[in-house]
Amino acid sequence: MKRRTQKFDKPGRPVTNPDRDARELLITAATELFAEHGVAATSFSTIAKRAGLTSPMVHYYFAEREQLLDAVVEERLCPFIDYVWGPVKPGGDPAELIAGMVMRLLRGIEQAPWVPSTWMREILNEGGLLRGRALRRIPFDKVRIVAEAIREGQASQALNPELNPLLVVFSMLGLVMLHMATIKIWAEVFHRKPLSRQAVGRHITGLLLGGLRHSPTLTQKNSRTKR
Amino acid sequence: MKRRTQKFDKPGRPVTNPDRDARELLITAATELFAEHGVAATSFSTIAKRAGLTSPMVHYYFAEREQLLDAVVEERLCPFIDYVWGPVKPGGDPAELIAGMVMRLLRGIEQAPWVPSTWMREILNEGGLLRGRALRRIPFDKVRIVAEAIREGQASQALNPELNPLLVVFSMLGLVMLHMATIKIWAEVFHRKPLSRQAVGRHITGLLLGGLRHSPTLTQKNSRTKR
Repeated sequence: MKRRTQKFDKPGRPVTNPDRDARELLITAATELFAEHGVAATSFSTIAKRAGLTSPMVHYYFAEREQLLDAVVEERLCPFIDYVWGPVKPGGDPAELIAGMVMRLLRGIEQAPWVPSTWMREILNEGGLLRGRALRRIPFDKVRIVAEAIREGQASQALNPELNPLLVVFSMLGLVMLHMATIKIWAEVFHRKPLSRQAVGRHITGLLLGGLRHSPTLTQKNSRTKR
Repeated sequence: MKRRTQKFDKPGRPVTNPDRDARELLITAATELFAEHGVAATSFSTIAKRAGLTSPMVHYYFAEREQLLDAVVEERLCPFIDYVWGPVKPGGDPAELIAGMVMRLLRGIEQAPWVPSTWMREILNEGGLLRGRALRRIPFDKVRIVAEAIREGQASQALNPELNPLLVVFSMLGLVMLHMATIKIWAEVFHRKPLSRQAVGRHITGLLLGGLRHSPTLTQKNSRTKR
């Protein structure tokens, strides 16, 4: 039961409902373990152990594994998605939309460091065990708002016509998740200090905003002569 | 990338060395299954079945699973890596180096369609079961050649100073693997035809080459005013 304290790492959260707390502890433990080892490799008993509870308690709150997966997606992944996509509104400047999303993705990951590896293993992967659930919760209306803003920018020759507007959105998501999921391993491989969130953000924003810009002579040079 | 197996994947090829052939069939089956379901979820008996052989035959050629994983990395992944990185030599133009690598990555994946999902699941993922083996085979001398070319371009103010040269290399690899691994799922989600390799290549090259360009006024505008 020592794990209970972890819950109160967040300041100012009084114990109001022990029943609810146990459930939250289990979801938190599951979310962390899924990120570390994958859903398939995580048993109820491992989750119980991490939460400082017993296997029967996991079964008490989540009769089947499916219910636990639902809870992780609805109660952990969805708030992250809402935070990132919430402020996206039609009529925005595409570069500002992209820069804002990269910033919120990185800030969101700071609060939810389990997101990148889970996103790569369980959502993007064919056979990923949260894939169906997570894909249903992607706000495709917002994805389309960003893609449409880019399309309009291309039509008015303000933005790079070589880019696929929809793929820009997935390139952005992918770059953030990928780089955040691999900061540690590259630091080990290259014997360096792990890059900061700011350094990663600067790189990704620089790449995306630079890539979005329309530069007729250079685009022509690159696409006609060099390739 | 001239691998014996590839010959025997094609129907109607005569069997010249049954012993060697069975081994190749097993490695091919394992490589495909690892990409489809992951290493952990693939048993010797599934591999045998896919290869049209028996479990004891798998054990005959690969006494332990570790030996089979070695063979997949050495005899399937390494030729891919060599094909992609081989032509990278010091002194090249960074934009041409990047465009050439994107092109070879996409061509290589056409021959070895199992690479993106295996790379994402078993190499990039923490706990990926080919991670250690694969990381040892990344040609870091070549990675440094590309990073150094970008660094020099930045020093002479020809290239975007916002980018991290090493991360450019991993952004490039990541974008190709990510987009190639997810072509099918996005086509399903958006009810569209899957994008062609050419379309993906155009997008990625456009994004990377556009992102690499140095555009002082715009960089300033984006990094100082907008963020």
